[in-house]
Amino acid sequence: MIKVGIVGGTGYTGVELLRLLAAHPEAQLTAITSRKEDGLPVADMFPSLRGHVDIAFSSPDKADLKQCDVVFFATPHGVAMAQAPELIAAGVKVIDLAADFRLKDQATFEKWYKIPHSAPDLLEEAVYGLPELNREDISKARLIANPGCYPTTMQLGFYPLLKAGIIDAGNLIADAKSGVSGAGRKAEIGTLFSEASDNFKAYGVHGHRHTPETSAQLQRYTDQKVGLIFTPHLVPMIRGMHSTLYARLTQDITNDALQALFEEQYKDAEFVDVMPFGSHPETRSTRGSNMLRIALHRPDNGNTVVILVVQDNLVKGASGQAVQCMNLMFGLPESTGLKQIALLP
Amino acid sequence: MIKVGIVGGTGYTGVELLRLLAAHPEAQLTAITSRKEDGLPVADMFPSLRGHVDIAFSSPDKADLKQCDVVFFATPHGVAMAQAPELIAAGVKVIDLAADFRLKDQATFEKWYKIPHSAPDLLEEAVYGLPELNREDISKARLIANPGCYPTTMQLGFYPLLKAGIIDAGNLIADAKSGVSGAGRKAEIGTLFSEASDNFKAYGVHGHRHTPETSAQLQRYTDQKVGLIFTPHLVPMIRGMHSTLYARLTQDITNDALQALFEEQYKDAEFVDVMPFGSHPETRSTRGSNMLRIALHRPDNGNTVVILVVQDNLVKGASGQAVQCMNLMFGLPESTGLKQIALLP
Amino acid sequence: MIKVGIVGGTGYTGVELLRLLAAHPEAQLTAITSRKEDGLPVADMFPSLRGHVDIAFSSPDKADLKQCDVVFFATPHGVAMAQAPELIAAGVKVIDLAADFRLKDQATFEKWYKIPHSAPDLLEEAVYGLPELNREDISKARLIANPGCYPTTMQLGFYPLLKAGIIDAGNLIADAKSGVSGAGRKAEIGTLFSEASDNFKAYGVHGHRHTPETSAQLQRYTDQKVGLIFTPHLVPMIRGMHSTLYARLTQDITNDALQALFEEQYKDAEFVDVMPFGSHPETRSTRGSNMLRIALHRPDNGNTVVILVVQDNLVKGASGQAVQCMNLMFGLPESTGLKQIALLP
Amino acid sequence: MIKVGIVGGTGYTGVELLRLLAAHPEAQLTAITSRKEDGLPVADMFPSLRGHVDIAFSSPDKADLKQCDVVFFATPHGVAMAQAPELIAAGVKVIDLAADFRLKDQATFEKWYKIPHSAPDLLEEAVYGLPELNREDISKARLIANPGCYPTTMQLGFYPLLKAGIIDAGNLIADAKSGVSGAGRKAEIGTLFSEASDNFKAYGVHGHRHTPETSAQLQRYTDQKVGLIFTPHLVPMIRGMHSTLYARLTQDITNDALQALFEEQYKDAEFVDVMPFGSHPETRSTRGSNMLRIALHRPDNGNTVVILVVQDNLVKGASGQAVQCMNLMFGLPESTGLKQIALLP
Repeated sequence: MIKVGIVGGTGYTGVELLRLLAAHPEAQLTAITSRKEDGLPVADMFPSLRGHVDIAFSSPDKADLKQCDVVFFATPHGVAMAQAPELIAAGVKVIDLAADFRLKDQATFEKWYKIPHSAPDLLEEAVYGLPELNREDISKARLIANPGCYPTTMQLGFYPLLKAGIIDAGNLIADAKSGVSGAGRKAEIGTLFSEASDNFKAYGVHGHRHTPETSAQLQRYTDQKVGLIFTPHLVPMIRGMHSTLYARLTQDITNDALQALFEEQYKDAEFVDVMPFGSHPETRSTRGSNMLRIALHRPDNGNTVVILVVQDNLVKGASGQAVQCMNLMFGLPESTGLKQIALLP
Repeated sequence: MIKVGIVGGTGYTGVELLRLLAAHPEAQLTAITSRKEDGLPVADMFPSLRGHVDIAFSSPDKADLKQCDVVFFATPHGVAMAQAPELIAAGVKVIDLAADFRLKDQATFEKWYKIPHSAPDLLEEAVYGLPELNREDISKARLIANPGCYPTTMQLGFYPLLKAGIIDAGNLIADAKSGVSGAGRKAEIGTLFSEASDNFKAYGVHGHRHTPETSAQLQRYTDQKVGLIFTPHLVPMIRGMHSTLYARLTQDITNDALQALFEEQYKDAEFVDVMPFGSHPETRSTRGSNMLRIALHRPDNGNTVVILVVQDNLVKGASGQAVQCMNLMFGLPESTGLKQIALLP
Repeated sequence: MIKVGIVGGTGYTGVELLRLLAAHPEAQLTAITSRKEDGLPVADMFPSLRGHVDIAFSSPDKADLKQCDVVFFATPHGVAMAQAPELIAAGVKVIDLAADFRLKDQATFEKWYKIPHSAPDLLEEAVYGLPELNREDISKARLIANPGCYPTTMQLGFYPLLKAGIIDAGNLIADAKSGVSGAGRKAEIGTLFSEASDNFKAYGVHGHRHTPETSAQLQRYTDQKVGLIFTPHLVPMIRGMHSTLYARLTQDITNDALQALFEEQYKDAEFVDVMPFGSHPETRSTRGSNMLRIALHRPDNGNTVVILVVQDNLVKGASGQAVQCMNLMFGLPESTGLKQIALLP
Repeated sequence: MIKVGIVGGTGYTGVELLRLLAAHPEAQLTAITSRKEDGLPVADMFPSLRGHVDIAFSSPDKADLKQCDVVFFATPHGVAMAQAPELIAAGVKVIDLAADFRLKDQATFEKWYKIPHSAPDLLEEAVYGLPELNREDISKARLIANPGCYPTTMQLGFYPLLKAGIIDAGNLIADAKSGVSGAGRKAEIGTLFSEASDNFKAYGVHGHRHTPETSAQLQRYTDQKVGLIFTPHLVPMIRGMHSTLYARLTQDITNDALQALFEEQYKDAEFVDVMPFGSHPETRSTRGSNMLRIALHRPDNGNTVVILVVQDNLVKGASGQAVQCMNLMFGLPESTGLKQIALLP
């Protein structure tokens, strides 16, 4: 059994990790830290876990995370970079669900996240945890930077086209929509029920941290200069993410060939479902599951391809993907503990 | 492996059965019927099942349900009574999720459901499928009447008090609230998003079919004449049921003793969670799981007990309970395939 | 024009007052205070008011509230009691939407609200602002205690029966459900979208501040000792309140006579709509309007009457009722500025 | 008083017309037809109108629509074209909220709506009812084609840029999102609460009827060939529409100049609110009001302009705009009866 520690288990990615790991046949929850909730049984905070998780939160100084085989950081940005070096030195693998190691370039990180990076030496070593594009490196990694939720959809959606070199990489548009849980479990007026319900809005259109992360990753797959317009929106639903991607074709290609490109690319990816051409995937078809679904469209058979991508932002967009990385890091089948079927309706 | 057939798999209890059975380690989906959708792969209708369920709907005349070990009826009232006799005669076990066999009294059935009963001979044999109160009989049954969703909460909430003989059985009030999925997957104006969202109302206050079912069952446990006021309401949420039960104590009893009564009653019930006295269970703590949670209150320490009961109306209130019955009927551990943790948030 | 001041305009009752008063033909918004938002144009915080409200928040020390004819307090408990005495002394009428003057008994107030009362001398003078039961006194008042949202529904629902002396006043049950806006515009985890959406729960079952308020008011209308069980619940909708009231008849009475009792009682009440016997009022039929709707039921024609009451908790349950009081206090027709039709769907 | 008739008042645009017209100081509801609901008081179907609307539905053959000054068609496509000719001949003005007269080209209409056009002679005369771009013609019209909800946002958003000739008209993208009420009050599975809630999806990406309507209108304002990609999505909210528009600048222009272009264009438009540059308008800021809000963005100060446009799809996107047209046609101030403030929260 893999001994697992979680730092910061009181947020949504934390409780989702708990749900997945409590049912994981090869993982054993060993420690979960929270300074504020020291001593509180986890199931008292999250009654959904009554009967499934019987450990309590412990304060960081008491928890001996070094006895773990792997530690997940489900924390705000800045925490993992402070604690990862010591854990890694002690032989513990680290998976960070925040952004501390997502950007290779320290200056870019500091510009977007407004904090100095305290572990720049690890930036080079950290592996970007998107298994469908990075499986080999993940399986050998000591430190994983788990991708952002939006970037997961954008990369898996644009990648086959970029790699094939048939689109204008300088002119990508991602109009993305997220459920409210993406904003986290923080007491804020903007995400109150009475503010976010029966409402729809864009946010951060002037610049969002997921733009540099996605651009940098996409740049790895093309010689063209990547240009990406990313517009996030808030949807009155708890879970779910829908990215509507627009790319301009630079070559003649049939719809069948387009479809084949995606099917071929993801034929061994257990968690990427390429639906029939012209489908309209629904976010709820992934609710609670680690599946990401893609469908292609071509309005008026013109030179714009529209790629629809859906996932559960807390699973494939966060905690499920982190467990998928853990499975790879420990030599387990990639889908171990991740076979939940989406909850519909 | 238990060979399973489903009649009527296009509704919400049907797709929920599919979700649970597709992941059940001892069950094999063998046939699923739908006259209207003959030939359509199930996963085309419910994309959440892509990769998990690969059979197609078949019309009732083509499907050989007699080759199954058990057949679930996830149909409107009236279908199971027509087909069950022949299946049972052929040695197939039957679990009806509708009301055909819930009422022992034919006249009462016909009064409330407005259709003649075509299999009255089976009424006596049919076993009411509430495992916590009826485990023994279920395990030996050929024909199960799976309880209604509301009645499950009312019975498990009132039972310990009734059995102990400490309340006025003639004066029970159940103020119950259900998510919209309880109304089924039927094209009707009243349950459209734009009608049911951001809204709350009572319905059927003059008389609901779950009243006679519940009264008849409760009457089994007391010599007093049961009198029940049942008021159902529609909540703008997909899944979830919350029953707020009121009973008048007829004897002195401490809160600790009340709590002990419930804990003792359900100490071996894997799917009934008696929470600490004075808790406020949330429906979402059961979302997607087969758990039912109960909490007791006693306002002003007076002689009224308030019992709060929550469950997922599609799982413990319908398809999960049906699978729980199946497990008992086939000698499997009661929780086989039913260990899903609730999805929260 | 009535010069109107608002203290504390950044919450939901505040913005609702702004919506109503901005369209009120006899009112002129003169000052609105907020220590934190001093200088911020109101419409910057609430873009729905762009083009309708052009004043800015000012800090309490700058705002000269004494120049107003009336001041509304849309503040947390404790603020009105501190400022009302000076305003009243200066000839300004005061309407408090919080609880400071709702309870006549100082000790009861201090027990439930956990703060000392700083203006006990005004408790006697303060008039409880429920126009349908108190019109005369309101029209002569200097200081109004605007009723709580739940108490409004409970009083208007039980009153005709209590006054007629035909129910057991010691055995009243109110199972009430409120939209989330009732919890206010405060940054708290419990009312986040991801916590409150797709969920239902009871809260405060052990004791809620609206119980003593309601009991004390109801006691005015009967010689029996009032006994009230009040169970509030949180509904995943923004606005709306539905109270399901249960009372035991102590006398024979026909359903027609029951219905007549309510129709007669409220025949001149512009904002109370007694629907046909056996109706199921929906909260959305009052969304954004000052209307409260009542419908009567009598299950099985037994001795329990079920009274269904709906209103918009922010309008008739708070700001609309406050404006209704203002109209009476200034000799205007009661419905001035309150004729909005509910928004449906 | 303007005598008003409504054909087809049982849908959402119908009930919204009723809400607006019942409060309109110059309009008198004279007749409302529904074959199915003949004789039913309107307020029995929509209790929100109790006390405000006291007429009943009448069957089309009984209603004498020719006595009206204006008749609104809130019907499915095909009804207005059948009845308008006779009404117009009798001197009655007609406002069609469906698509019968939106497309000038008969063949295009028949291709997209799959029905023959029975009144092609009126296509030329019909005036497209978008007051901000067409005020003059509307005020003289006998027959109004009220714009689609999506096209209203796309036209008002792209127009100032197109007219200024500073964007590539051949490369417009509109990623649009609508509340569920846009699908109408029809009994269909796809818009049930349990299907549409807590879910998000695109639909009709291969081709939507609002594309040719919008393209044809936009084409009037530019010599370039208009090319428009339009992607509609369904948002789990009742009312509200948010269009995110993307256009490529073909000329150097400062952000200030861009902003000035929009402010100048709409400075006299009472129902178009150009918000400060970089704002994020919320749909709820228009809920129940006839206001449309626009905000401009320019990511990375590059050559893509992002225009965010919000409105209430049932008001400015349908019935409110229709009343706005009526006001112009009868020489009333454009905002008569349309001053409702949005309901927030």
